Amino acid sequence: MKPTRPRMQKGLDRKAQAYTASLPFDRRLYREDIEGSIAHARMLARQGIISEKDAELIVMGLVSIREEMEQGTFPFKEEMEDIHMNIEVRLAEKIGDAAGRLHTARSRNDQIALDMRLYLKRAITETVGRLRGFQKALLELAEANKSVVMPGYTHLQRAQPVLFTHHLLAYFEMAQRDVERFLDCLKRVDVLPLGSGALAGVPYPIDRDFLARELGFGWVSQNSIDAVSDRDFVAEYEAAACLAMMHLSRLVEELVLWSTEEFGLVEMDEAYATGSSIMPQKRNPDVAELARGKTGRVYGHLMAILTTLKGLPLAYNRDLQEDKEGLFDTIDTLHFTLEVLTGMVQTLKVDSARTRKAAEEGYILATDLADYLVKKGIPFRKAHGIVGEVVRYASESGKGLKELTLEEYRRSSNLFDKDVLNITLESSIASRDVPGGTAPEQVKKALARAREILKGDA
Amino acid sequence: MKPTRPRMQKGLDRKAQAYTASLPFDRRLYREDIEGSIAHARMLARQGIISEKDAELIVMGLVSIREEMEQGTFPFKEEMEDIHMNIEVRLAEKIGDAAGRLHTARSRNDQIALDMRLYLKRAITETVGRLRGFQKALLELAEANKSVVMPGYTHLQRAQPVLFTHHLLAYFEMAQRDVERFLDCLKRVDVLPLGSGALAGVPYPIDRDFLARELGFGWVSQNSIDAVSDRDFVAEYEAAACLAMMHLSRLVEELVLWSTEEFGLVEMDEAYATGSSIMPQKRNPDVAELARGKTGRVYGHLMAILTTLKGLPLAYNRDLQEDKEGLFDTIDTLHFTLEVLTGMVQTLKVDSARTRKAAEEGYILATDLADYLVKKGIPFRKAHGIVGEVVRYASESGKGLKELTLEEYRRSSNLFDKDVLNITLESSIASRDVPGGTAPEQVKKALARAREILKGDA
Amino acid sequence: MKPTRPRMQKGLDRKAQAYTASLPFDRRLYREDIEGSIAHARMLARQGIISEKDAELIVMGLVSIREEMEQGTFPFKEEMEDIHMNIEVRLAEKIGDAAGRLHTARSRNDQIALDMRLYLKRAITETVGRLRGFQKALLELAEANKSVVMPGYTHLQRAQPVLFTHHLLAYFEMAQRDVERFLDCLKRVDVLPLGSGALAGVPYPIDRDFLARELGFGWVSQNSIDAVSDRDFVAEYEAAACLAMMHLSRLVEELVLWSTEEFGLVEMDEAYATGSSIMPQKRNPDVAELARGKTGRVYGHLMAILTTLKGLPLAYNRDLQEDKEGLFDTIDTLHFTLEVLTGMVQTLKVDSARTRKAAEEGYILATDLADYLVKKGIPFRKAHGIVGEVVRYASESGKGLKELTLEEYRRSSNLFDKDVLNITLESSIASRDVPGGTAPEQVKKALARAREILKGDA
Amino acid sequence: MKPTRPRMQKGLDRKAQAYTASLPFDRRLYREDIEGSIAHARMLARQGIISEKDAELIVMGLVSIREEMEQGTFPFKEEMEDIHMNIEVRLAEKIGDAAGRLHTARSRNDQIALDMRLYLKRAITETVGRLRGFQKALLELAEANKSVVMPGYTHLQRAQPVLFTHHLLAYFEMAQRDVERFLDCLKRVDVLPLGSGALAGVPYPIDRDFLARELGFGWVSQNSIDAVSDRDFVAEYEAAACLAMMHLSRLVEELVLWSTEEFGLVEMDEAYATGSSIMPQKRNPDVAELARGKTGRVYGHLMAILTTLKGLPLAYNRDLQEDKEGLFDTIDTLHFTLEVLTGMVQTLKVDSARTRKAAEEGYILATDLADYLVKKGIPFRKAHGIVGEVVRYASESGKGLKELTLEEYRRSSNLFDKDVLNITLESSIASRDVPGGTAPEQVKKALARAREILKGDA
Repeated sequence: MKPTRPRMQKGLDRKAQAYTASLPFDRRLYREDIEGSIAHARMLARQGIISEKDAELIVMGLVSIREEMEQGTFPFKEEMEDIHMNIEVRLAEKIGDAAGRLHTARSRNDQIALDMRLYLKRAITETVGRLRGFQKALLELAEANKSVVMPGYTHLQRAQPVLFTHHLLAYFEMAQRDVERFLDCLKRVDVLPLGSGALAGVPYPIDRDFLARELGFGWVSQNSIDAVSDRDFVAEYEAAACLAMMHLSRLVEELVLWSTEEFGLVEMDEAYATGSSIMPQKRNPDVAELARGKTGRVYGHLMAILTTLKGLPLAYNRDLQEDKEGLFDTIDTLHFTLEVLTGMVQTLKVDSARTRKAAEEGYILATDLADYLVKKGIPFRKAHGIVGEVVRYASESGKGLKELTLEEYRRSSNLFDKDVLNITLESSIASRDVPGGTAPEQVKKALARAREILKGDA
Repeated sequence: MKPTRPRMQKGLDRKAQAYTASLPFDRRLYREDIEGSIAHARMLARQGIISEKDAELIVMGLVSIREEMEQGTFPFKEEMEDIHMNIEVRLAEKIGDAAGRLHTARSRNDQIALDMRLYLKRAITETVGRLRGFQKALLELAEANKSVVMPGYTHLQRAQPVLFTHHLLAYFEMAQRDVERFLDCLKRVDVLPLGSGALAGVPYPIDRDFLARELGFGWVSQNSIDAVSDRDFVAEYEAAACLAMMHLSRLVEELVLWSTEEFGLVEMDEAYATGSSIMPQKRNPDVAELARGKTGRVYGHLMAILTTLKGLPLAYNRDLQEDKEGLFDTIDTLHFTLEVLTGMVQTLKVDSARTRKAAEEGYILATDLADYLVKKGIPFRKAHGIVGEVVRYASESGKGLKELTLEEYRRSSNLFDKDVLNITLESSIASRDVPGGTAPEQVKKALARAREILKGDA
Repeated sequence: MKPTRPRMQKGLDRKAQAYTASLPFDRRLYREDIEGSIAHARMLARQGIISEKDAELIVMGLVSIREEMEQGTFPFKEEMEDIHMNIEVRLAEKIGDAAGRLHTARSRNDQIALDMRLYLKRAITETVGRLRGFQKALLELAEANKSVVMPGYTHLQRAQPVLFTHHLLAYFEMAQRDVERFLDCLKRVDVLPLGSGALAGVPYPIDRDFLARELGFGWVSQNSIDAVSDRDFVAEYEAAACLAMMHLSRLVEELVLWSTEEFGLVEMDEAYATGSSIMPQKRNPDVAELARGKTGRVYGHLMAILTTLKGLPLAYNRDLQEDKEGLFDTIDTLHFTLEVLTGMVQTLKVDSARTRKAAEEGYILATDLADYLVKKGIPFRKAHGIVGEVVRYASESGKGLKELTLEEYRRSSNLFDKDVLNITLESSIASRDVPGGTAPEQVKKALARAREILKGDA
Repeated sequence: MKPTRPRMQKGLDRKAQAYTASLPFDRRLYREDIEGSIAHARMLARQGIISEKDAELIVMGLVSIREEMEQGTFPFKEEMEDIHMNIEVRLAEKIGDAAGRLHTARSRNDQIALDMRLYLKRAITETVGRLRGFQKALLELAEANKSVVMPGYTHLQRAQPVLFTHHLLAYFEMAQRDVERFLDCLKRVDVLPLGSGALAGVPYPIDRDFLARELGFGWVSQNSIDAVSDRDFVAEYEAAACLAMMHLSRLVEELVLWSTEEFGLVEMDEAYATGSSIMPQKRNPDVAELARGKTGRVYGHLMAILTTLKGLPLAYNRDLQEDKEGLFDTIDTLHFTLEVLTGMVQTLKVDSARTRKAAEEGYILATDLADYLVKKGIPFRKAHGIVGEVVRYASESGKGLKELTLEEYRRSSNLFDKDVLNITLESSIASRDVPGGTAPEQVKKALARAREILKGDA
């Protein structure tokens, strides 16, 4: 008979037991569970709720259990449904009756909430670290390609010339917002739930502030019913992860595109390319594609936890056990994706000849022509119309803008003068000299700011 | 160096390899992979593309690999990324050069599509079988409680009396639609993709009809590009599974409610109840709650695959590898949930005294009063208003309808006559004597039809 | 006071009334609501439940209300929350007391289920019609470009040459599955719920088969509780719509890509291109992009209804009112997207020179080389390795396969002979001569089959 | 011909134009659009980019357009696709050529990003205000019912007695987290994108800091490419809204449950109850149910925007237009739901007799018995087992704990003494005297803290 069902005479149905078991995935929480129990035992002794001797025995037992876990020698019992019962039962084997005193003033409801929060706090620290590593790789690639000119795209059509560095730093900004979001989320994870008991608090003179200090929490939860039924922090982490994966999906989409024979703007290192079982010539960007595909999985986990939480009455319900697998997989997927893409960015080669050629073809300087006319005094909207005519003429004559003569320009407007022929990729880029713009001076400042951000965080 | 990257000089980055590896989850497809390869080898020999001797060797080798898999002695190589390469490499170890001929006229793209379809065909058969088992349990519980009267609810307020059997058969109908949806899905899974090659077909005189017959497929795919990039069948199965889980979530929501001290309409067997780590009195419906919670997970998998497929260019992209884990977990979750809930339904006890008491209290026969007045000749809408007045009077006087005297009825309308006092739960139920209604005669027919359905399927 | 709250003394809070009102979106159901009421009135008279005279009055009144609706002169009353009450109240204004008799043997619960099913049945017919129109446009474009050769892509890398027609027909197949899925869904929509009353059936001798015939339903619902709480059909339509939108998102993704300056394989007609407010040269594929973006919206509606239905106890709950807006927007979005994309496909121009050039560059015939070697007797896996070496050599020498001499081929294998130089795009395509393959003969058959499908449906 | 397509000779297809039009939903942004344009015109003049006179004309024109909008006299032109073009064209009608100068140094890409951010900043302020109002209603209800005792539930089974006030304050905590999340989101909305041009910045000496000050932004965007393609803020608001709706769904789920005849713990005011078209006795909690149902809709919008953003290449793509309807509906739904539920909470009546009765029945004090034994010196786990035995005995004897004699208690353990009979609901509640617990002292502090929070915000 299970220790938790003293009122019942029958055990759980064998299948139902396997169905409800969480051991296969919550064993990952053993470190947090033991850490929380040690702090709890110490607090109980400090408050005179259990004896110092019992507390010492308990701590010793738990330390030795942690040792077994780390050595891989812990004798897991599948029939003991979860990690908590496995540790509880093992502790009793090791130290006898004193083990039973550990469960004074605590319920599995506040215990599991504690474990999850401890685990997630660490995970967020690692998430932020990996985002920082990814930003560093972007920054280095950006710095190594400062003079590379490429077409900026809107609607995947060439729009205006930009510096490759500027384009890359857009991803730095996205990652920066991700960092901020995870740190905001951390504030709401950093709350100690222990002491909430099953749902109503506990009838012992416990010291929750001591527990918070021992376990490194910044805050103590304010309402016991909320504390055991709250899983906002799981959903909030997953929502932040969705945005982070979405950003990565945009980057790899571009890398996949740019690696095509047609674009050819970059080349992924062979270490990030795969072959084909049938086509011997293939260098496929599978790693990038898989990162894109895994975005779906992370979105799915968010949808899953939101669905699970919808309409749940207070306080704890077993539905909440479904918080774990999705969260763990979200963390793993995001971390692994960041790690692999960091490597991919670090080894990426930019083909600066092709990026320039792509920018030179076609009508990418048309906006500059319009702005040229504006400076001659006509309203932008009118200038825009005139240049549209120029482009139509050029396109029908099969010419690029560079190939037009001044006479041809003047067919559309007398305001065109010789200096119109001085408009180049470089002049276009240099002219976007506003904060956040692509002019070299601005991009230099952006690089300096990015370095500052990464340093500040080191 | 991997056999699949002959053009490249460097291997895949170690982390990238782990990231792209599918072996941890696609090893589940070994049976289908071997079965497909055996059929392919036989076809190749039959068509004179490889020799009979080579085919024999290949088949022998594959059979012995399957044996190793089933014995648990197969030497999995993690660095060989997926189940296909593991089998391919092992086959070469066993039979040498002939192994290389198996990959004639086939690509991993059509091979994996084949494996997934073979696997899902079997899964659907099992899904339908488990739905049938669940329907059978519902039917048996329904038949065992044919005389139980309960309140029918709308908005969770008591609405009109119904037979418990009638209520239960609503779930039989839902499961019946689930069965039909899975069978419709099966038609679109039952299509052989093998022979599509990487994407364009293969330059060998293969016999796809022979392959279809050997492998038990009803149809052969019509377009090779579509065949290797299509994962509709994954999403369609998952969508059907979402509806099935949604139905189960409605049932367990009701069982959780009905098991409360407040409702008390049913009692779950102890084999499906759990205790508490802290509250000794508890009998919690954890199994039911977990089934409800797992609905979220299945919804999440659907969202994941839909997201992954969105906007993918043709033909195969590595994003498609993300089809597997979600599908496998969907199948497992649905199957396990059906199995456990079948057991729960089989052991459920109905408290017919409390269901009757719940139906007797309050104003559940108010609609019958309105219909009574309609039969006396006034329009329904007017009758509805009169009875509303009766109920308001009764409620303000703290009485149930049964406690009202004829005089009290007549305060609201002279049409009330002595026979109004004959309206009872039984008369109300019996009066709903239309196809699909709750009258005992109709419910009897419904039970007969349900039995017929299950028999027809046996 | 509202006719529906006879027991209460207070009205609904003004804000709550606006919150619960469905008139802004359910007025779209007026035609179905009136049609259902007419059939109901006729049935009631036929069964002697109301008089023929009353029925005539009711039908006349309803017909004149429909007229008002269609003329735009119907006096909508916002305070009458929904379309049903608006019609009910208006009918009473028109014909007096007889109006009240229409609500005999019917509840809003079965009435709204009926309206939704009638509406969706028609919508599906239109959905299928639009899919057929879209398939026709694909087929015509495919037939008009039968000789166009293009690179087939996997991982967005050039893989093997295919006919443009073959690639396009992949989308025909997807649309074909969509048609089948909608028709399967239709079977489950085509079920009459009327007669289920509030949840238990009705206490009048109604004729449900007559109603089904009048209203064109193939089946009658089997369980009244299920009939009023079932919204599977909404979710099932939306799931099918998700797959259809996903298919369209894949097509437009390709069209956006192919329309880039870099790919340049197709040109969208100006009627489907937009300009820019600032860049005068732009021809943006906004229409295609928006179709891709709208995929998200349809996925969202599916997730919404699934979430709403999760864990709902039987029978009707007001949550179900949330079925409408998502369904209507799904239908509208899918229909409009199909219509617009049909036009886009009809006017698409293929640049057969560029598609051929793209196929000629690079190493797209590498698989053919491997198959060439297989025919000389070596296993495919070995041949694959040899060709990988050839490609590596060519790539390092900056040559395409066409530029290699026989001697250069023979550096990797003596099996290469003069006939290796005969391998061309045409020979490659012609060799994929298996059912579903890209060989002209097979594509011709596929076109014939496609024409047959469209004809059969006309 | 549209001003934005100067290069093209044909207009947009009529259907495609309707398909891409955003006027039906983006007209809601007119105020922000005009406000942004006024600031832009002032800045252009201040920097000498346009003349003061032109700026004055522009501002005058825009003010008069705003007037027209607010009076409902603005002549919307549907063929002018969006709100920006409508205003642009109208301005030209009013002030002639000068209107064309407003579009100097600005693109629709940074303009629409600006409008959305301005709009959302205001929306967040309102969201927070409504959450505060909702918290206030909770607090008032909590304060008005300070002495009400009810069963705390886990797994919907009675668990331990709690104060009703304590239970209610759990929702106060949830709303508090919601407030914090929206304020965190606000930091990332509060960033000026104007000056980013189409994607690369603008070639004019603009003053972005001036713009930020004029428009009340705290920050200026750092990367022009990111600024025009970023919609994180939409997804982040929607994710926060999902959690807020989820919390509300939990509350209304409880209110629906508690309003059943079976629970009967609360009564909703008639102003929030609806009747039935057929059952005259009904008082249905439709408003609460609809709030629960609308959770799905908000989840759906989040999923929609995440799907839309997945894998989008930089910079602006038309897919981004899909950000609006979902965001607007999310804001509206959340605001309206908060408003209506605030009213519902304000008028809720608690039946303190029934809540107490529910707490008194059964074995809700079992944990207190276990803690009683612990205080006598035995380990909790052992005490838990003993009390399980007591409960089993009582339950089999058909008795509640209050009905057991000391002798009966002592059958299970000699440690039970006379004082065991002093354990009551009140003693149980008072004993949970830890921070966050349900003891009256603690709840008093929680109320004080809640008042403080609301005051601080006023």
